[in-house]
Amino acid sequence: MPSELPRNWAVALFNSFDPIDIFGPIDPLFYLSFSRQLNLALVSDTLDPVWVRTASEALNKMNSTFQVSVNPTHTYNKPPKDIDVLLVPGGPGSRLGNVTTTIDFVRKVYPNLKYLITTCTGAGIAARAGVLDGKRATTNKAAWNTITPMGPNVKWTSPARWVVDGNIWTSSGIASGLDLIFAFIEAVYGEKLSHDIQGITEHQRTTDPCDDPFAGWYHVPASGHCNMS
Amino acid sequence: MPSELPRNWAVALFNSFDPIDIFGPIDPLFYLSFSRQLNLALVSDTLDPVWVRTASEALNKMNSTFQVSVNPTHTYNKPPKDIDVLLVPGGPGSRLGNVTTTIDFVRKVYPNLKYLITTCTGAGIAARAGVLDGKRATTNKAAWNTITPMGPNVKWTSPARWVVDGNIWTSSGIASGLDLIFAFIEAVYGEKLSHDIQGITEHQRTTDPCDDPFAGWYHVPASGHCNMS
Repeated sequence: MPSELPRNWAVALFNSFDPIDIFGPIDPLFYLSFSRQLNLALVSDTLDPVWVRTASEALNKMNSTFQVSVNPTHTYNKPPKDIDVLLVPGGPGSRLGNVTTTIDFVRKVYPNLKYLITTCTGAGIAARAGVLDGKRATTNKAAWNTITPMGPNVKWTSPARWVVDGNIWTSSGIASGLDLIFAFIEAVYGEKLSHDIQGITEHQRTTDPCDDPFAGWYHVPASGHCNMS
Repeated sequence: MPSELPRNWAVALFNSFDPIDIFGPIDPLFYLSFSRQLNLALVSDTLDPVWVRTASEALNKMNSTFQVSVNPTHTYNKPPKDIDVLLVPGGPGSRLGNVTTTIDFVRKVYPNLKYLITTCTGAGIAARAGVLDGKRATTNKAAWNTITPMGPNVKWTSPARWVVDGNIWTSSGIASGLDLIFAFIEAVYGEKLSHDIQGITEHQRTTDPCDDPFAGWYHVPASGHCNMS
């Protein structure tokens, strides 16, 4: 029934997020919002701009000035009501910054979500929130050894481009979020919309969730199974 | 010689840009900025936030509230000096909005650039600036019939995931900008950095610039040749 499809999307923002972790999913959803009524909230500690930048100036070893900021619409203390889908991105800040408030927010809102989506090292935030316990999930293969200890009770799965367990969708590194979101749109909003938006965005999809060359690149040992949904 | 490699990047922003048109290239460059000194400027009409949104409220037919804003760092009247590479994105605003100031800016700065990159319908902006005249270029195949008349003297090329002609790199639709930027990083900054960043970002690259299924999806007639650089 269309009225029950997810309509209210939110992103849990923190400083030093990775931009494609967010815009990989948000870009196709933006075009979906032309065909379906969708709402987007960007939630963070404050309404101040949130930055794509190194997690600390000490890590900016080349002294680059290469950063971008986006503007939240809500705060963790005053989030929108009735979030249907929460997207938790990764990025340098997800493992090196202070994301306690983001972790607390994920833990608090998860019980009322229709779906939780994490991209890249955002799985480490969800793991620390406890919501991945006992679930199959994946994360960036280059960051595997850093992120997976954050969730000792998570069934970490590799190789996997993305993993679905119940209402939780987790993707591997950065660009894999595009493959996740097309699979999500196809499963939830229907094949025609997914196909139409794939044409507009010209994304050459990886449609097999087990197609993950990067597990091999980083010698991540095999565990679990990517498409056992 | 490292000192001559492009260092100063700028994005020409306008309202209703497509986010992956920008962040597809900017995300890998962000990680490149950890290994090389790079600077990024976001240039627009004013320093007010610039929006991912429909080009007019009339086009927001589902009454969605699905938008994101990013913050410019410079204005077209007071741009940074010494821009090495200018990225011109597309998006709904590139064809339906008023982008006269962006077109004028591209025309003005092009003679001093090391490289011009367009993604998606950003090629229509570069075409109207006249800088693609006599050059091979491509654009989003779903928007082909709208964009190509903007440059009657451009050698529009299809099928093509991206096209290089001299110092101008043009990509096809939205997600193709990721393939373009990895080819650019490989060609300009070197294969090792491209490979390392591909691992971090887990982008499953299309490495053949002629691999363009979307030309067929949209029945774009064949013209020119994609890799005749």
